[in-house]
Amino acid sequence: MMASQTSSALVLGRGLTSHSTRLSQHQLHSLASSGVVIRRYFSAKPSRNHTNHDRERVVILGSGWAGYAVARNLDKTKFEPIVVSPRSYFVFTPLLASTAVGTLEFRTILEPIRRIPGIGFCQGWAEDIDFSNKTVRVESNAADDPASKTVVPADPIGPPGRVPKVKGEFFDISYDKLVIACGAYSQTFGIEGVREHAHFLRDIGDARRLRLRVLSLFEQCAIPENDNNTQPHLTDDDKRTLLHFAIVGGGPTGIEYAAELHDLIYDDLAKIYPRLMQFVSITVYDVAPKVLPMFDQALANYAMNTFARQGISVKTQHHLERIRPADGHLGNEHGALRIKIREYGPDNEVGAGVVVWSTGLMANPLIQKLASKEFALPATHSTYPSPVDAPLPIRKLSRDPRTGSLLTDSFLRAQYHTPSTNSDHQKKTTPQALEDVFVIGDCSQIIPSSSPTNSSISAVGTLPKTAQVASQQALHLSKTLNKNQVGIKPFTFRNWGTMTYLGSWKAIHQSSADELKGWVAWVLWRGAYLTKSMSVRNKLLVPVYWVVSWLFGRGISRF
Amino acid sequence: MMASQTSSALVLGRGLTSHSTRLSQHQLHSLASSGVVIRRYFSAKPSRNHTNHDRERVVILGSGWAGYAVARNLDKTKFEPIVVSPRSYFVFTPLLASTAVGTLEFRTILEPIRRIPGIGFCQGWAEDIDFSNKTVRVESNAADDPASKTVVPADPIGPPGRVPKVKGEFFDISYDKLVIACGAYSQTFGIEGVREHAHFLRDIGDARRLRLRVLSLFEQCAIPENDNNTQPHLTDDDKRTLLHFAIVGGGPTGIEYAAELHDLIYDDLAKIYPRLMQFVSITVYDVAPKVLPMFDQALANYAMNTFARQGISVKTQHHLERIRPADGHLGNEHGALRIKIREYGPDNEVGAGVVVWSTGLMANPLIQKLASKEFALPATHSTYPSPVDAPLPIRKLSRDPRTGSLLTDSFLRAQYHTPSTNSDHQKKTTPQALEDVFVIGDCSQIIPSSSPTNSSISAVGTLPKTAQVASQQALHLSKTLNKNQVGIKPFTFRNWGTMTYLGSWKAIHQSSADELKGWVAWVLWRGAYLTKSMSVRNKLLVPVYWVVSWLFGRGISRF
Repeated sequence: MMASQTSSALVLGRGLTSHSTRLSQHQLHSLASSGVVIRRYFSAKPSRNHTNHDRERVVILGSGWAGYAVARNLDKTKFEPIVVSPRSYFVFTPLLASTAVGTLEFRTILEPIRRIPGIGFCQGWAEDIDFSNKTVRVESNAADDPASKTVVPADPIGPPGRVPKVKGEFFDISYDKLVIACGAYSQTFGIEGVREHAHFLRDIGDARRLRLRVLSLFEQCAIPENDNNTQPHLTDDDKRTLLHFAIVGGGPTGIEYAAELHDLIYDDLAKIYPRLMQFVSITVYDVAPKVLPMFDQALANYAMNTFARQGISVKTQHHLERIRPADGHLGNEHGALRIKIREYGPDNEVGAGVVVWSTGLMANPLIQKLASKEFALPATHSTYPSPVDAPLPIRKLSRDPRTGSLLTDSFLRAQYHTPSTNSDHQKKTTPQALEDVFVIGDCSQIIPSSSPTNSSISAVGTLPKTAQVASQQALHLSKTLNKNQVGIKPFTFRNWGTMTYLGSWKAIHQSSADELKGWVAWVLWRGAYLTKSMSVRNKLLVPVYWVVSWLFGRGISRF
Repeated sequence: MMASQTSSALVLGRGLTSHSTRLSQHQLHSLASSGVVIRRYFSAKPSRNHTNHDRERVVILGSGWAGYAVARNLDKTKFEPIVVSPRSYFVFTPLLASTAVGTLEFRTILEPIRRIPGIGFCQGWAEDIDFSNKTVRVESNAADDPASKTVVPADPIGPPGRVPKVKGEFFDISYDKLVIACGAYSQTFGIEGVREHAHFLRDIGDARRLRLRVLSLFEQCAIPENDNNTQPHLTDDDKRTLLHFAIVGGGPTGIEYAAELHDLIYDDLAKIYPRLMQFVSITVYDVAPKVLPMFDQALANYAMNTFARQGISVKTQHHLERIRPADGHLGNEHGALRIKIREYGPDNEVGAGVVVWSTGLMANPLIQKLASKEFALPATHSTYPSPVDAPLPIRKLSRDPRTGSLLTDSFLRAQYHTPSTNSDHQKKTTPQALEDVFVIGDCSQIIPSSSPTNSSISAVGTLPKTAQVASQQALHLSKTLNKNQVGIKPFTFRNWGTMTYLGSWKAIHQSSADELKGWVAWVLWRGAYLTKSMSVRNKLLVPVYWVVSWLFGRGISRF
């Protein structure tokens, strides 16, 4: 426990009356009983006072696989977890594609954060972290923006369909321990038009918009033929464009969405719009020579054969270079898009009604800011004792230059180093751990302990950025925190294998132990996952929806 | 069957390339096989040709209780039903309030129109009807506007939260028989601010917006106390304003929403935000001296006593005169409202976080247009034989001057009369029926056959504008059409009684036969209703959600 510090919470007045501070009632309660006060961002001195409070506060940034699991598994008798997230829920992402095609209801894969007993919750974005004073600056999500923020907005208003963002209010939350688990944004490689026109599939709002768009495209194409005297409003070519579903990225997310979309179209929409089926096409584009790179060749071939039988085209070694709206009424009234592919030459754009983007991740703005920010650690910081009056050395968090992720030691603690001011000192600094700051999930990267640690080298033997890794890191971290064993037992990743759904009740599964194909693998694997992560409510509802959708078809009402 | 007419489908060119025509694939199919062509709005001549098609086309305007039931129950071997509706689904309105508080999932009370076998569907608004040529002009709902259009928009963009409306495309659909079942808009009495700031509860989009708003208000009020040096951002009075839920209208819809909201707050939100409960209040305002006027005094008293125990205020004989946004950050950032009530004097506005408006119905724009429009009937119209070369007399549909509804005879056929051009002819015209045009549901009013029929008198013994009446009219109409008995058996309304949920598992039920109180009544009555009107899918899902919400609480995730 830290030494307690002077407790004067001076607040400077700069426009503060137009801001608010926001914490949960639970948190308020614990605050009131512990004597800790929430301080404004501009307060001059830390005001922490731990003398009469016996639970350490763990502030958790993010409510995804990593953050949600830490919040659930921390021992609430020892810790006071406070989750900071712009979303009020956790999304069970392996079933996101299923909700995007109406097999499952959106809410069956959501777990509200506030249903976790004994935690506090602040709805907002972590905007900055003050490692010296151990506080997090939060921008409240006052507009209760229901849309995803998993991609950097192309303009101040944000991605299409997004509610214009009202500027939030700022406030500070102090922490004893901090868990940075705020994930990553979608990687668009700066390609023209992707942020403006592509659909993503990261959050529940993405799934909802994509579902509405696909169903609406079929309705738009269900127009009558005209009598012989006039041009039809939508030609057959127009319908081929609108009903071309382009998926960019041949990883599991892209492949699974293609598969689920195929099932929706051929199981359900074919009965309702039989005469439109001739115009439908699904294409998966990838720059690599092979999709599903995490699977061995035999399983990947099985996947490709399955897709070929289903009529899904897979175009490997294709480079998308631009997305733009189609000209004329097809673009203006029906939202059709034109895709430029390098391999087809500059004059051969491909038309599409929807482009789904799923090519990977990039560091989000908070991680980018943290990685470039300099800070000083107070003299009381246990790992760096220094004379009280000496100037504090400047520190910087270490980051992986390739992915932009924050580097951690094998105990998942954030690494920092002293930036070299001139060439003489370049060799003197070796990364050290911030004792109370942990980074897990998609925004983190472990430096393998065997390799020489240096802030600028790329970590070798890196873990994939998956739910599985995030989930295991979260469990490991909560256990070691609960047992007070941080720094004793390093994190090790146990690969449970990878599973991808291929449509038509087929799936492939691969792990070190076994290799499985077909729907039995799917049911076992997904069932196990579901059992581990979801509330009883959703454990009941998801199978109910599977049966209902199987018996009566998927939900197709649009609203 | 009508005499067939010349079949030249001349289309004039005025800007038609930017418009499209839109019909279902099913319809296309029947069109192709029947030789009937869809004509453009500007086509010069009717192009109907019935020689090689044996099913009469019944165009049904609306997909509510009336329109949906006609579409389901028409004999598809005798008729070709085509539903024209801006929504792609039917809403089971008795459970709308349950979805607005998260007890049920939105989609469990929706039935997609396209799931009805053997019907055609055009998503759009009926914009005008040409009774002479038997065509309906439709504006397609190209934007697939998911929001409700049950209230006249206050501005071109529409009510708050609504997607900006893209102007649709226009096309014509010809009919053999027409069923006008397009319902009514919410009555706002022209009161200032209602259209802009109140929430309605008519369509699924309304329920979704209201649910998000209520949950978001609690999150917004969950702000921390500040240290002693600063003013809190939200004072206790601010929280009392934001957590005041005002419901205007003491009919069953308003009362049920108040009851369901009470259950949500005290069953679920009280556990999550215990310290906010002191600020919560629910008030029902009504201009009448008594709420629930359709119930006798004993049952209404029981309802009022139940509400009193639950802490819901009921303010009868209160007149709301204006709704406006609150001043300062409470209005700008939190969307708080100020309500002016006549009885409280001009300077005593009441604050509220939400105002739910449920005071009654008014004629929608199509009905208003039809009621004021003049038309001529062709010589072939069976009820009005006239020499072919004589000028056709001008007709007008008869309307109820009080409600604006279209008047029908007891066979549900639209009534028309000849407008008097001078006082001499005033007595000569008596209403007659348009043989092939039926009006049912909220937009219709039956002239009791015993009373003297005149276009301008208010009908006596009018039926209430309820789902029950609309549903029975639809069943009666489909049966008489199926049996070719129109004009033989008049419609009679059988009152199955009225049921209102009062919260806390209590309900009241009243009919001529019996009087019931308590939850047994509720389960029996609602179960019976559900069985009659819903698909098997939703018959399964609704009870599942009742059990799940009862066991695990209501859905509270916001997205």
